[in-house]
Amino acid sequence: MAASGIAKRRAAARAEGSKHYVERRRALIKAAATVFKERGLADTSIDDIAKAAGVDRASLYYYVASKRELFEEVVQDALVSNIEMAERIREKDAPADEKLTELLNGLLTSYAEYYPHLYVFVQEDASRIAGRSDGGADIADLQRRFDRALISIIQEGMEAGVFRSDIPPRLAAYGIIGMANWTHRWFNPDGPVGPEEVGRAFSALAIDGLRGSTR
Amino acid sequence: MAASGIAKRRAAARAEGSKHYVERRRALIKAAATVFKERGLADTSIDDIAKAAGVDRASLYYYVASKRELFEEVVQDALVSNIEMAERIREKDAPADEKLTELLNGLLTSYAEYYPHLYVFVQEDASRIAGRSDGGADIADLQRRFDRALISIIQEGMEAGVFRSDIPPRLAAYGIIGMANWTHRWFNPDGPVGPEEVGRAFSALAIDGLRGSTR
Repeated sequence: MAASGIAKRRAAARAEGSKHYVERRRALIKAAATVFKERGLADTSIDDIAKAAGVDRASLYYYVASKRELFEEVVQDALVSNIEMAERIREKDAPADEKLTELLNGLLTSYAEYYPHLYVFVQEDASRIAGRSDGGADIADLQRRFDRALISIIQEGMEAGVFRSDIPPRLAAYGIIGMANWTHRWFNPDGPVGPEEVGRAFSALAIDGLRGSTR
Repeated sequence: MAASGIAKRRAAARAEGSKHYVERRRALIKAAATVFKERGLADTSIDDIAKAAGVDRASLYYYVASKRELFEEVVQDALVSNIEMAERIREKDAPADEKLTELLNGLLTSYAEYYPHLYVFVQEDASRIAGRSDGGADIADLQRRFDRALISIIQEGMEAGVFRSDIPPRLAAYGIIGMANWTHRWFNPDGPVGPEEVGRAFSALAIDGLRGSTR
């Protein structure tokens, strides 16, 4: 079958890993990210991506096996880099409010830097994706790792008396994640408001909100 | 054509507005809301909805013309009721922090009350929907009306010195909307944490965040 022929050629090209192949594949992933962001995962077809990348469908299959593989490629790197950032910040020897500020600023900067890759992930409901494919569960796991790091930082601040403790840490974390992730609906790194300004505003809101009025 | 015959019968039944017809239609909209929430707008077919409602496809078209009409019915009522709430609260003679608390609590209560109707709207990107149909622009307009009411309340608080003024009101509003709207990914009104608890936590974070550490 042709499909199996393509799969073999793809496996061989990937194993060889020529510079041209790797660059071409990266360009495809970038084109896919833009289409996913504009149309959503469900409404994007392999043909849409091929068209946006300026290749035909058959050439596209020489680089990736499926739309699903493209989607995972689009989000995985950016997501893993954010989780590693969150876990690195959590381990630092610093007060919790400084850690939280650094994490929020880092998150918003990465949304701008990886734009629109990370927003493709934020936009799609990871729990819905998880139910549909083998790879999905990993993405939901990655999300939970990020959540855990943030919750730890908040708990640490509460225990140290830096943060109020009349709010469940998980609810506070979800509120802060919501502020940051909702930017996928309105924030454009090429727009008039940069990630630094958003990071500064959201850090100020979150930190003072968590310090509470009793201080 | 059969489709045109159905359209005429639907128009007649709707004009007549018998109790049975209205109730049956409402049950369909409720079933559609649940399917939209689970699968997303793009991945839901008319057949999925017919199946969930326990009717055949032909009967469904006796009540609604399209998936799009069902989607609009699902979100419109809940959305309009929230906007009217926001505008009513804005007009009140009360301090801005009280208004904001009332608005956030009201919003989270309505997410629970209209569950999952409002989340269907939150989950879908209104700007993407707007690009696709005639009705979509109205939904985006409704969203902007809500945003404007919230921004006014925040501005009022800044001018009165109740809130900090080192953050652009629009950024603060988007942060707060993000906290509230992101609940569509994790909040379940039948779960262990009720809308009151979430409303209380988020109001505390938002109000103290907006008051700032200078107070």
